[in-house]
Amino acid sequence: MIAIDLNSDLGESYGAWSMGDDAAMLAIVSSANVACGFHAGDPLGILNTVRAAAEKGVSIGAHVSYPDRVGFGRRDMDVASNDLTADVIYQIGALKGIAAAAGVTVGYVKPHGALYNRIAHDPKQGQAVIDGIKAIDSSLVLMGLANAPILKLARDSGLRTVAEAFADRAYAPDGQLVSRREPGAVLHDTRLIAHRMLQLAREGTLEAIDGSTIKIDAQSICVHGDSPGAVAIAKAIRQAFEADGITVRSFLSA
Amino acid sequence: MIAIDLNSDLGESYGAWSMGDDAAMLAIVSSANVACGFHAGDPLGILNTVRAAAEKGVSIGAHVSYPDRVGFGRRDMDVASNDLTADVIYQIGALKGIAAAAGVTVGYVKPHGALYNRIAHDPKQGQAVIDGIKAIDSSLVLMGLANAPILKLARDSGLRTVAEAFADRAYAPDGQLVSRREPGAVLHDTRLIAHRMLQLAREGTLEAIDGSTIKIDAQSICVHGDSPGAVAIAKAIRQAFEADGITVRSFLSA
Amino acid sequence: MIAIDLNSDLGESYGAWSMGDDAAMLAIVSSANVACGFHAGDPLGILNTVRAAAEKGVSIGAHVSYPDRVGFGRRDMDVASNDLTADVIYQIGALKGIAAAAGVTVGYVKPHGALYNRIAHDPKQGQAVIDGIKAIDSSLVLMGLANAPILKLARDSGLRTVAEAFADRAYAPDGQLVSRREPGAVLHDTRLIAHRMLQLAREGTLEAIDGSTIKIDAQSICVHGDSPGAVAIAKAIRQAFEADGITVRSFLSA
Amino acid sequence: MIAIDLNSDLGESYGAWSMGDDAAMLAIVSSANVACGFHAGDPLGILNTVRAAAEKGVSIGAHVSYPDRVGFGRRDMDVASNDLTADVIYQIGALKGIAAAAGVTVGYVKPHGALYNRIAHDPKQGQAVIDGIKAIDSSLVLMGLANAPILKLARDSGLRTVAEAFADRAYAPDGQLVSRREPGAVLHDTRLIAHRMLQLAREGTLEAIDGSTIKIDAQSICVHGDSPGAVAIAKAIRQAFEADGITVRSFLSA
Repeated sequence: MIAIDLNSDLGESYGAWSMGDDAAMLAIVSSANVACGFHAGDPLGILNTVRAAAEKGVSIGAHVSYPDRVGFGRRDMDVASNDLTADVIYQIGALKGIAAAAGVTVGYVKPHGALYNRIAHDPKQGQAVIDGIKAIDSSLVLMGLANAPILKLARDSGLRTVAEAFADRAYAPDGQLVSRREPGAVLHDTRLIAHRMLQLAREGTLEAIDGSTIKIDAQSICVHGDSPGAVAIAKAIRQAFEADGITVRSFLSA
Repeated sequence: MIAIDLNSDLGESYGAWSMGDDAAMLAIVSSANVACGFHAGDPLGILNTVRAAAEKGVSIGAHVSYPDRVGFGRRDMDVASNDLTADVIYQIGALKGIAAAAGVTVGYVKPHGALYNRIAHDPKQGQAVIDGIKAIDSSLVLMGLANAPILKLARDSGLRTVAEAFADRAYAPDGQLVSRREPGAVLHDTRLIAHRMLQLAREGTLEAIDGSTIKIDAQSICVHGDSPGAVAIAKAIRQAFEADGITVRSFLSA
Repeated sequence: MIAIDLNSDLGESYGAWSMGDDAAMLAIVSSANVACGFHAGDPLGILNTVRAAAEKGVSIGAHVSYPDRVGFGRRDMDVASNDLTADVIYQIGALKGIAAAAGVTVGYVKPHGALYNRIAHDPKQGQAVIDGIKAIDSSLVLMGLANAPILKLARDSGLRTVAEAFADRAYAPDGQLVSRREPGAVLHDTRLIAHRMLQLAREGTLEAIDGSTIKIDAQSICVHGDSPGAVAIAKAIRQAFEADGITVRSFLSA
Repeated sequence: MIAIDLNSDLGESYGAWSMGDDAAMLAIVSSANVACGFHAGDPLGILNTVRAAAEKGVSIGAHVSYPDRVGFGRRDMDVASNDLTADVIYQIGALKGIAAAAGVTVGYVKPHGALYNRIAHDPKQGQAVIDGIKAIDSSLVLMGLANAPILKLARDSGLRTVAEAFADRAYAPDGQLVSRREPGAVLHDTRLIAHRMLQLAREGTLEAIDGSTIKIDAQSICVHGDSPGAVAIAKAIRQAFEADGITVRSFLSA
């Protein structure tokens, strides 16, 4: 039996501002990357998201970020290693506290936005994030980009890792994501995306943007929920998996 | 043998800005009320303070606050109960994470500034704070103002409490603090303060501002460290205790 | 010929989070209360809103707030007078700068949320706001709640004022707003609201919640745009005015 | 007669946290780079600094920054051009408002910290800053690093510029600052620094770190006041100038 995880960014509202459709996504995904307050998420909003995830049996991950709310954590920042390590500890701790209040636990860490992209290839910031995770709870799993150096760096440091692929993104022949600045980087065709994800789950491969077949060893697939179209794509992937006998299940429940 | 706790507000620097002399105070007090980021304290600064406290064997408390950094948490805010409860959980969680990274635990919670004053007498916000503490960790002790209603409210809710007195404050005949707006509200005479604290520790009484003797049942004494004069007062109290055979010891180690 | 102003809160998005339908509202109102960054509004978002208002010929007001982004400026805060005065100057200055960049000017100030409600009746904070406005530009008009003491206080201090009524709120027999906590405080019936606003514009009266007729001397009507229903109500009011020969026009162009 | 400007970063306190000795520096410098709230400076603190500068006849410059208070604006950030332009407008506007309240005007703009270093050589962010300045007030002077490309870029865009040298920094043979990571980058010898600044003011040259003589065409010298030692150096430079018949005067009063 094949099983795969679906993850999505949740809890990204902030005070009076809302973002995404958490309720819809919690009916689709098996893992919730929950904002920790640095790019999004006020305490009550985070608590409500974690409670809703707990009710659905969805796993909780800490979606840690650079401290940049107005930039939604999407801007590269030269944060010093000791600051970054402490920022990661603080955010994971805050989410652990909220999870405890909701009667669940935080199982993994997925850095957000610019921090995610930066550490995929930058061993200095990557190590700082790893050090933060290990300092607070070395049983936490680090979720990172399939094929990126951060995963090996984390494993070499003693962390368990999980690799993820992006459902709506095109891949280069070398297994990297096509930059969003390139044409065709973001996929919108629901049927095509569902078909690609079936192939990924069954065969561990994807068709790259040049038509070649590349190997992507991913245990989780990232889907988005920040627009009605994104929710529809996520739902289509889940339905395609279920129709094909593939179980959607958190990598933590393996 | 008589023992009493000395507590002080620490970790109140923020980024490039520093406040207080944490190193000096950690050599004096037995309990550190550590800022959690809402009124003061950036993650690295908090981590450094907690590590230093851990080295000295000083107990760690969460100094939770309203979210008001520019006002240093000193301004009353009408925060809704569910927001306040979540704010408290978030802050305690963040500090617990940092404490875990430093190999220690958070033992108590002392609300800061305007929140401290508000909940002393406001059962609505008080209950919201209590609910937050209980939701994350019901073994945490709530530190509050001796004789204030919040202590009974917390005990009735199942929390352990510890009452504190303020070393440098005058008391009214009814056992309440004289408002800072009144003349004589803040004491500056080091010898007098040390003498008063000895009486408090030995007999559980203080001379009120009108000369009458009042009963103050306090297990902890709050001392300040935000100026050289404040550090000197704290040091004098500690020395007076030691000279008089009174042990300075965290209420948590009883 | 009768003319009246319609005003609405705009520019209340923040970074990646959006709020309200500024484009729709700018086609309806004659005055835009533009967020200044303290409760909402990032610089680029504010600039875009001011540019859009400038294109439509809509007047610009500074929607100044307490510094409480996570609470959206809706929570009462005990801000000291000198801080509040400086906060008001800072926010108006920032918006003036953005208006200059868009080739327009700021014509009035309308405090937001909890600050609006507080100063309606609190002369201490009210005077601090007035002092801030006068310090930066004494030609600015203060917009406030019709019948509230703040308007007289401002005029006595030498500011020009404009009184506003709320389209979707019920009024008590004494001319005050019915508290949102009371049943019937917020009106939802589009036709009824439009009818009431016609009466207000033509006769300066409204039917209070007890059926009595009260006098409301308002030169501006506040309409909301934070939901599709709110936009529809605003549009209905505008259409009712136009059908009835009432000109919708900024009080500044009188 | 030779005249030169001395500038310093001021108004960098924040709420309860203080930084630097503004009063001491205002007795020394002719130009004050005043924080605008993004890296430091709360409204009341900024207002007090501007009022004190006004009393001393010291020129006011806007010390604009990336939005990074916890990092004190010292961390490089990939801010998009349209955001950066709006951030600059907002900050200058806020300071202009505060200056108006103090009865003075803002005369120049000096980007702070990481933004200063970034735009010295990055034409994309540099142009965004220039566009912001021009959009709000094209009569503002841009202060930048002597010999850096930003100065020509600004002049080509129609801005007046002023070049500055750093009193306590070593220079490379190519006229660039020696990186702080290199040994000898920061000078501490008060007499040596004063001597170097005399040579700079009289001859427009400095001895580089390798002993060679380099040309530095600077109309302003940056001095620091964030420690007692820094204030002493600034004072020594001023005294050396006065003893040598060099007038310390804002470049704006030329």
